[in-house]
Amino acid sequence: MTPPIVTLTTDFGLQDHYSGTMKGVILARCPNAQLVDITHEIAAFSILAGAYAISQAAPYFPTSTVHVVVIDPGVGTERKPLLAEANGQFFIAPDNGVLSFIVSRAARAVVRELSNRDLWLPSPSTTFHGRDVFAAVAGALAGGKIRPEDVGAVVNRPLLLDNLEPAEIERGHWRGVVLSVDRFGNVVTNLKSVDFAGGLTGSFRLTAGGGEVTEVRETFSGAPHAGFVCRGSSGYLEIGVNQENAARRYSIRPGDSVDFRFGY
Amino acid sequence: MTPPIVTLTTDFGLQDHYSGTMKGVILARCPNAQLVDITHEIAAFSILAGAYAISQAAPYFPTSTVHVVVIDPGVGTERKPLLAEANGQFFIAPDNGVLSFIVSRAARAVVRELSNRDLWLPSPSTTFHGRDVFAAVAGALAGGKIRPEDVGAVVNRPLLLDNLEPAEIERGHWRGVVLSVDRFGNVVTNLKSVDFAGGLTGSFRLTAGGGEVTEVRETFSGAPHAGFVCRGSSGYLEIGVNQENAARRYSIRPGDSVDFRFGY
Amino acid sequence: MTPPIVTLTTDFGLQDHYSGTMKGVILARCPNAQLVDITHEIAAFSILAGAYAISQAAPYFPTSTVHVVVIDPGVGTERKPLLAEANGQFFIAPDNGVLSFIVSRAARAVVRELSNRDLWLPSPSTTFHGRDVFAAVAGALAGGKIRPEDVGAVVNRPLLLDNLEPAEIERGHWRGVVLSVDRFGNVVTNLKSVDFAGGLTGSFRLTAGGGEVTEVRETFSGAPHAGFVCRGSSGYLEIGVNQENAARRYSIRPGDSVDFRFGY
Repeated sequence: MTPPIVTLTTDFGLQDHYSGTMKGVILARCPNAQLVDITHEIAAFSILAGAYAISQAAPYFPTSTVHVVVIDPGVGTERKPLLAEANGQFFIAPDNGVLSFIVSRAARAVVRELSNRDLWLPSPSTTFHGRDVFAAVAGALAGGKIRPEDVGAVVNRPLLLDNLEPAEIERGHWRGVVLSVDRFGNVVTNLKSVDFAGGLTGSFRLTAGGGEVTEVRETFSGAPHAGFVCRGSSGYLEIGVNQENAARRYSIRPGDSVDFRFGY
Repeated sequence: MTPPIVTLTTDFGLQDHYSGTMKGVILARCPNAQLVDITHEIAAFSILAGAYAISQAAPYFPTSTVHVVVIDPGVGTERKPLLAEANGQFFIAPDNGVLSFIVSRAARAVVRELSNRDLWLPSPSTTFHGRDVFAAVAGALAGGKIRPEDVGAVVNRPLLLDNLEPAEIERGHWRGVVLSVDRFGNVVTNLKSVDFAGGLTGSFRLTAGGGEVTEVRETFSGAPHAGFVCRGSSGYLEIGVNQENAARRYSIRPGDSVDFRFGY
Repeated sequence: MTPPIVTLTTDFGLQDHYSGTMKGVILARCPNAQLVDITHEIAAFSILAGAYAISQAAPYFPTSTVHVVVIDPGVGTERKPLLAEANGQFFIAPDNGVLSFIVSRAARAVVRELSNRDLWLPSPSTTFHGRDVFAAVAGALAGGKIRPEDVGAVVNRPLLLDNLEPAEIERGHWRGVVLSVDRFGNVVTNLKSVDFAGGLTGSFRLTAGGGEVTEVRETFSGAPHAGFVCRGSSGYLEIGVNQENAARRYSIRPGDSVDFRFGY
């Protein structure tokens, strides 16, 4: 029998017992779970970075995978805990936009509130819903103890971030945002490669932070220290510098705006 | 069949091959182990932090879980390697106090020395008992190859840290210690919520490092930048600052003393 | 049935979704894989550090384990992706020397190029072969979907690093290299304990970076702050300072040269 997969994406970091404790809660309800860390090093409280990470990882997992995504600055407040079904997978997360890419891009998404408190741990804390709410429900769902409809009522309008898609401010001139700066300093924009690759065939200028790049390259090799745009592995246009940290070189941070002009 | 769970808590960090190598040793003896990292980022040599982390995580794991806890500044010296049975679970660790919370708070704990060297790896190193002793015995135990009594003789007085519990220095005035500073800068004291919550209902003053807080709050939301005491998720009184790093704000570090006065 | 083991060693770090995404690809092809992280914190692009880490961890894993090793500064260029069979295990990695210790020290190693693109993900990126090539083939191999010979043709001369072994520059005077500085600041040289321990019985001098040590010790305990040579757990001579960071004390970094004179 195929073990149920449960992934974890959080901003809890790795120095504390938090992610390990969530796994205990999951295993108590689903002993043969296949547990996978996507990352626990999302920048603290960075909903956009969490939304990006889970949207990148989820498509590579099989149907029925349960993804737990806890970037939750509003823990303990009235923000709802959610279960979303999308693309044949399950996503358990707070209602703060961290599922924006998943929900807004799915052909169909059904979102429910985790209002059935019988599925939470008894006497839940107000500060660690990752353990007391999200992991508990994830374990029950992955363990086949409940069906999705048991968690609570449908939520029609989950919160979505409003800067997901780039905007065309004039013809051939787009304004976007930096989704991510990775470990190597590569900068991922929200300009989708499939939509914008055409703009890279002529002359173009992509600016972000203090950087301006006007060249395309397909790999991180070649002449060192020159900045370039790359189609990367994310499906978005990325900014890189060969064997150098592009984000540091150009002082670019996640959330920075990106300006893309082509055909001039 | 439910796979046996083996958790790992160490100060080995994640840059080296150490935790991965321990897992190889465990899997060679227990191929279907469910391996869970609690954390490998305990501050180097910090026995108190390790004792706190495993005491927080263990209660959320099922019966029979084997916890391996290796914060071991005395590796290679005469300090004993131990196996403790407590609360229906197993704990494998050096005899240096890292199991203090587990052993001192269990209704009953049986502690044994890992003196049966047939269970160790052949030619054990003097510097990596995590691999050569603790993982080897954990794998054998989780794999059902041995019974607890096979590891060695009972140890009647395992080493316990002496600053685990707060002391009342005068009526309504307690002296405790900081157990942990987490990734978010939240400060966990050793004042148990269940014992001290009464003191928070009137006026009180909790001081640690350069900070003094006199308010209670139940979540990390609300007015920003104000310090407060929170019951948190740990079972202990915690010090937080809304969306700010409390430990940095007040220069608090693990091991710092905590002063709590109430009812004045 | 014993679950197939797949280990991961990369320089991808833990902040991004990269290692988690690779695991999704592996699980889609081998749902019951036992996934083990050796480390994802190899210094970016450090082939020597990766070669050292996998050579230390692999011997502790069972036969048939599949090790995926992705330190890959040349991703997207002509460098070949490889599968090596050595010591009854499998190693999937780029052809850049990261398997140097494994291949050069095995009694027999068969190395193949991953030239069968049917085993890669469709439309592979040029920047994330960890996901699109290495994880995909690892999952297929661990899942029993392919045999080693299905991946591609034999490669007779995989790239090997040229500074693996120390050189004797005059009698009793050796020149080596620092393989690793671990989390605790312990310095691992490439002088094999079994070959050089004899030199430690008389007077000797081991120098690296700004440090010179002339004493041997078997553990990290004893008088603090004195530097010493230790046989360590790696099979190599290591330089340590009791409860202090030796690498910082002596300004030693991986790749630094090591000078060892004995018997003078």
